[in-house]
Parts: sequence; C-alpha cells; structure tokens
Amino acid sequence: MVDIIHRIGIKSTAAQVYKALTTIEGLAHWWTEETSGDAKIGGKIEFIFRSTTGELKGKMVMEVQDLNVEKNVRWRCVEGPNEWIGTDITFQLSSQDGQTILLFGHRNWREAIEMTSHCSMKWAVFLLSLREYVETGKGKPSPHDLKIDNWN
Amino acid sequence: MVDIIHRIGIKSTAAQVYKALTTIEGLAHWWTEETSGDAKIGGKIEFIFRSTTGELKGKMVMEVQDLNVEKNVRWRCVEGPNEWIGTDITFQLSSQDGQTILLFGHRNWREAIEMTSHCSMKWAVFLLSLREYVETGKGKPSPHDLKIDNWN
Repeated sequence: MVDIIHRIGIKSTAAQVYKALTTIEGLAHWWTEETSGDAKIGGKIEFIFRSTTGELKGKMVMEVQDLNVEKNVRWRCVEGPNEWIGTDITFQLSSQDGQTILLFGHRNWREAIEMTSHCSMKWAVFLLSLREYVETGKGKPSPHDLKIDNWN
Repeated sequence: MVDIIHRIGIKSTAAQVYKALTTIEGLAHWWTEETSGDAKIGGKIEFIFRSTTGELKGKMVMEVQDLNVEKNVRWRCVEGPNEWIGTDITFQLSSQDGQTILLFGHRNWREAIEMTSHCSMKWAVFLLSLREYVETGKGKPSPHDLKIDNWN
C-alpha cells in the first residue's frame, strides 16, 4: 500500500483546525465550495469539484469513520475515482511550539501511479489553503484553487 | 521503501526546466541560494540551508548519478540528515498540453516517519518555487522559502 503523507503547522488552536476539518462549512472554505452531507461519525460527505466555468471535474463521497475531538479524523472514500475508492484520508492534530501541527495522510493507495503524484502535490496546495483559511478566514477552495498541472 | 512523489506543470520549455535542475545557478534560484559544486554527471552538489538570520539549519550533498538532456535527472544523497543518506532525488520531464510536466521523486526512504511528511510538504513548496522561478524569473529559495511548520 502507498501513502501520501504531509505535515503542516497552523498558527491557531487545535479547536479551530478541528472545526475546519469536521464541519460542512469549514470544509467548504478550504477544499471545495460545493461540500454537503453529514459530517458526523458514520455520515457521508459529498465533495464536488468544478472548473471556474462550472464544468464538473470530479466528485468524491467520504464516509466519516473516526472523530476524536481536537485529535484526529478519518474518512474512507466510498465514491469517486476508481483509484480513490477504499483509500483513507486521515488528519492527526497536536500542539507544538504554539502551532497546531497537522499530520495529513491519504492512505492505502493500491499503487503509486502518476495520479498519486498529482494528488500528493494537490493535497499540499489544499493544506496551504486550509492554513490560510484557519489563520486569516479566507482559503482557496475549488474552484478558486491553485492549479498545479494540466490535470487541474 | 517509501517514496515521496509529486507532479507539477510548468508553462515553459523542457529546456528551461532542465536548466533550472542541472546548473548551480538554476538550483540556487529555487531550492537554496547557498548551492555550490559540480553539477555534471559524477559531480557533487552541496546545498546549505540557513535561517534568515544566518543560522545553519541543514546541509545536503547530492551526487549526480543520471542526466538525460531535457528528460531526467537523478541524484543520490551522500551527505545530510541520516534519514536522507542513500535516498534518491529524481526529476522526469515530459511535454503535455503546452506545459512541461515534472514528475518529482524523493525515493527509497527506509521508512515513513514524521520527517518524511515534513519533507513531502516542503518539497511541494519548493516545486512551486521552481515553477515560479522558471515562469517569472524569481523563485523562493532558502532562506526566503515559505515556512510550513515548526521544523521550518
């Protein structure tokens, strides 16, 4: 199995970061504006990605599998690109040196393909968007996200 | 073995990107200003990282193991943090949709540790610096790099 793992520090409380990861409103401010569903444990959250002109680019549904307040979050991808189905998204929070440290994982890819490299880079950009949102109130969720290559 | 892999598109020619990856001057414009050594095959390149106040933060020496003009570059880390020694840095270039697509790899980590997550995120930020340098003439090499967490 192949994992994408990233570490980022956010100058805010774990409570604020956790809120951005576990509420529909929070998620819509840094990953994609078109976020809906039930963010509670056992619930499903739908994320839709469009181009700036409204064209559908992708859709993922995540089942919320684990929630520990201000500590960690785990989703399982249950709908989306074939390569994503069955993979897990994990967020682990800790406090260090006045920052909230987020260990992010997109885990259990069946193999490391070119799409994995694209997603690794794209997740890094979305984590910078998350940090910007939590620190300043304004992130860069899709469709306003930084484009990284010819795939998006 | 664990690999960090990222994909980024740069709106420039493969020749320009290759030059930024294979000359001391090019590397100094996006990774660290303090770059010196011999960038030819078999040569060693030294990269020194400092804080903005001049404090030494890290030093890596890469041996250039493979160079294929406008196609790929491979370095082996021969000096640096213990976790980096023996790992490989790879850059593969192709042209797609009017962009140069760079597949980046930092390969053959012995295990996925928290430092791997930090480096994965940090490499993403340096690849954005590389793109900015190639597209605009001005990147964000160390010590002007975007800090991502409490480790740097």
